[in-house]
Amino acid sequence: MQIVNGFPSTMQDDYQLNMINIIRHATRCFGRQEIVTRKPGGLFRYTYREAYERIKRLANALGKLGIGVGDRVGVLEWNTYRFYEMDFGIPGTGAVLLQLNLRLAPKDLVYVINHAGAKCIFVDETLVPLAEAIAPMCPTVKNFVVLTDKPLREVKTKLNPVHSYEELLAGAEPAYEWPDLDEKSAYACCYTTGTTGDPKGVYYSHRNVYLHSHAIALNAEISYRDCFFQIVPMFHANGWGTPQAATLAGAKLLFPGRYAVEDLAPLVDLWVQEKATVADGAPAIFLPMLRYIERMPVKPDLTGARLLSGATEPPVALMKGLYDLTGAEVIHAYGATETTPLVTINRLKPWLQRELTEEQRWDIKRKQGYAVVGLDLKIIDESGKELPDDGKSVGEIVIKGPWITAKYFNAPGTEVQFTPDGYWRSGDAGTMDEEGYVKITDRVKDLIKSGGEWISSTDMENELISHPAVLEAAVTGINHPKWEERPLALLVLKEEFKGQVKFDDFLQHLGQKFAKWQLPDEILFIEAIPKTSVGKIDKKVIRQQYQDFYMKR
Amino acid sequence: MQIVNGFPSTMQDDYQLNMINIIRHATRCFGRQEIVTRKPGGLFRYTYREAYERIKRLANALGKLGIGVGDRVGVLEWNTYRFYEMDFGIPGTGAVLLQLNLRLAPKDLVYVINHAGAKCIFVDETLVPLAEAIAPMCPTVKNFVVLTDKPLREVKTKLNPVHSYEELLAGAEPAYEWPDLDEKSAYACCYTTGTTGDPKGVYYSHRNVYLHSHAIALNAEISYRDCFFQIVPMFHANGWGTPQAATLAGAKLLFPGRYAVEDLAPLVDLWVQEKATVADGAPAIFLPMLRYIERMPVKPDLTGARLLSGATEPPVALMKGLYDLTGAEVIHAYGATETTPLVTINRLKPWLQRELTEEQRWDIKRKQGYAVVGLDLKIIDESGKELPDDGKSVGEIVIKGPWITAKYFNAPGTEVQFTPDGYWRSGDAGTMDEEGYVKITDRVKDLIKSGGEWISSTDMENELISHPAVLEAAVTGINHPKWEERPLALLVLKEEFKGQVKFDDFLQHLGQKFAKWQLPDEILFIEAIPKTSVGKIDKKVIRQQYQDFYMKR
Repeated sequence: MQIVNGFPSTMQDDYQLNMINIIRHATRCFGRQEIVTRKPGGLFRYTYREAYERIKRLANALGKLGIGVGDRVGVLEWNTYRFYEMDFGIPGTGAVLLQLNLRLAPKDLVYVINHAGAKCIFVDETLVPLAEAIAPMCPTVKNFVVLTDKPLREVKTKLNPVHSYEELLAGAEPAYEWPDLDEKSAYACCYTTGTTGDPKGVYYSHRNVYLHSHAIALNAEISYRDCFFQIVPMFHANGWGTPQAATLAGAKLLFPGRYAVEDLAPLVDLWVQEKATVADGAPAIFLPMLRYIERMPVKPDLTGARLLSGATEPPVALMKGLYDLTGAEVIHAYGATETTPLVTINRLKPWLQRELTEEQRWDIKRKQGYAVVGLDLKIIDESGKELPDDGKSVGEIVIKGPWITAKYFNAPGTEVQFTPDGYWRSGDAGTMDEEGYVKITDRVKDLIKSGGEWISSTDMENELISHPAVLEAAVTGINHPKWEERPLALLVLKEEFKGQVKFDDFLQHLGQKFAKWQLPDEILFIEAIPKTSVGKIDKKVIRQQYQDFYMKR
Repeated sequence: MQIVNGFPSTMQDDYQLNMINIIRHATRCFGRQEIVTRKPGGLFRYTYREAYERIKRLANALGKLGIGVGDRVGVLEWNTYRFYEMDFGIPGTGAVLLQLNLRLAPKDLVYVINHAGAKCIFVDETLVPLAEAIAPMCPTVKNFVVLTDKPLREVKTKLNPVHSYEELLAGAEPAYEWPDLDEKSAYACCYTTGTTGDPKGVYYSHRNVYLHSHAIALNAEISYRDCFFQIVPMFHANGWGTPQAATLAGAKLLFPGRYAVEDLAPLVDLWVQEKATVADGAPAIFLPMLRYIERMPVKPDLTGARLLSGATEPPVALMKGLYDLTGAEVIHAYGATETTPLVTINRLKPWLQRELTEEQRWDIKRKQGYAVVGLDLKIIDESGKELPDDGKSVGEIVIKGPWITAKYFNAPGTEVQFTPDGYWRSGDAGTMDEEGYVKITDRVKDLIKSGGEWISSTDMENELISHPAVLEAAVTGINHPKWEERPLALLVLKEEFKGQVKFDDFLQHLGQKFAKWQLPDEILFIEAIPKTSVGKIDKKVIRQQYQDFYMKR
């Protein structure tokens, strides 16, 4: 649509939305607010004011390393105050923070660094071996900076030239004049890694992250009285934009440092000790936390705490368990790297709180939620037509807005991921009800189209997993001579159930939730389900392997 | 400072911040949320969804009246749902809502309408006589639209051509495709009326009001669980931008309709009945409300309610009184027509809550507060140099930011109200402390400069008014042969004290707060203090009248 110019305003409309203004404000008005990081030796505490002084020193240090406006700077680091400093210091100078996923396979990391053309890498001491492994394949990287408390000479490394973050900061001036950056300048970039093809780069702008920070603060209701616990990795989908949003609100910040999903006890203890009131994470983190809390002799009182939960839909048992034991509320939110990431959030509207039964309320809380203000979200059919918000019509979720990507960086052929009218195609299939709540039923490509009707493979997988005999389940649409596609279920059974259950048992189980025509034509019992490098079911491989399964019968 | 272009982002940075998106979102995601208006016949209730349908009809009706992109449309109306509809419907089409202060003298109204070149005036039935009085002097106005529930034929008026708002809406289509407006297009305009010169126009942009709505929602912490009570006139300084902010948050809205400061009982009753949780106003409104509540046999429980209080600093007795009786918190905020208006807000930081005595906390709450995030506020001396944030150095408060005006519309000679580096000069003198709290001590031109040191005339007036014998007080700086200026106090005594108190009594009273050199050289007992048309002390007249008072002695 053509942009229309109205009557001229008299306002300072050319004042640029620049992320450095947010930490500057926090320093001036919430200068004594704390930022607490869990480190191997204990907790490290300082204030916004102290952080900002180091951020200015970092800006000067970047200049000394020859990093200027527009240069990309990679960061390989856990959730710490140093990552936080770089979140402002690097983009503040006009450089771009390249968020490096430290769980990525080295070959993907190399691809990302080369595609972005990073000029420098900041790397935590514990990750130096990873940096050393990829360094020879990254010709654009001219400097490495090690994040460590030790003197540089005590760090054994082949990285070259190599510097110490702390020594650079100690040697830099604490005064820095920030450039007045155009708000459309890139602030940071993050690469998505799907199941197919090379990682694709999304370059966030200052304007976009600024507006997104407001969206997070408004929807998660973060205030200066809160303590925000940053559990989501800061290299993952813009770190959810939550450290920036917490800074916008003047909240206390809590960083967990390095942690392992296998032992979340330190995180729960930290949470209780520092009185965190808002946190972000996913069921994969909150579930083991709940298990730990269940074993605690005295349950922590987390009344009023909000746990923003991304990734998959939070199970009712998780939400109810945490609420009953601690008073904390799990709030499901939905988004992606391409969306900065906040798209929808699930808050229960006051009238629904009044009208619905408790069970209905829990059921609603499993949905992805409604689109946050500022975004334009719709659900479209294959022809691009918008579907009604009836809670039934399934189509693809597409989104437009100031913090949604318009393209992928230097990635020919990816135009198909956008609609002709400029919406980003999420690839997620779902519905929207009259209240605006979105419910994802599947990945679009994982929906099964049988005789013109849809079957949700995810729903069926969830239902199969709820059977006591099932360890893992994958349901895929397989070509069918008559119905176009029909579901095929692959099951890995628990050891003790092997040979004890059969096809009919599962048909009966599924029959409680699915119509007869939706039931799989076949169930195969196998030893392992094909997975991608990040542990997702690899439907592409399954589809290839079984493509003729129903055709040949 | 030159704007610097960084690396290009991949984001939808051209997605325009357009106010119509905010009501569209509220309709989709909070469609059942209520908007309640007090009308002569009782309460009128409808939902965001119903409001939005009428807003679309209004947009079509504007087209039929020949109003297009860029046209200015005047509104003379109380705080009602119809004003709310116009707040979105007029700017949504690309036209500009001209906020008309119905308390303005007719000659000033005529000036404003002609200066803006308004093409049409929307006027409440009760204000038709005012519109009729000014109509002959407003040649650009081609149509009048009466806001009334009656059939148009029952409204006696000489306005011509004249239409009925309700009949226009009833005859208009409920479907409308909003233009994709450039975010820098004017959204509304409002004229300031100072003590000198003609009214000056500020033209708000969609971008600016959009960002300001976020600032209000974030700082007043408005959520979808709140009920926002719009007490501040919607024609006054952009109506504080609060109806828009409440819509952004999905809050319930409460409009008081026409009310008189002389009888605020209906407002308190409405507040309690509709369970308002946030309101905006000023001590001039909240004080009589407190008086009414003091007389109520059963005090309303307003625990957690927030009263955003603008204009003058709220007296501790008001804040404490409301808190003790109802649990409501008065929150002082500061701004002006030129600032959309939110500049500072006074929230007590958690560490101050812990560290300060109760008295110190009340004392802090009287300050104007800290600058909200997004704005750049500083205090400068006469040479333009930034003063330290020591809570002592007095200078002029100057402000920059996305919702601060850059100029006045077609007003040659007003450039002096901006600093060379683009800050708007507030004309207010004040200090900033280390926590960022701003305290206004005076209007810059009301500060008294004696022997190179400053004396606050406002502080001295407040102190004089606290004396039991004083009805009114004005303190002005008068030319002095030796000290440049010296304070002169004018007092109106209460009837029963006349002749009973003298100069020395007041010197003694002032001596508790002021240094000896600051005390007025003379106090004059008079019958009435010169006032401006809006009831402010007219220092200009006083200065003229007494200019040689100290020179001739």
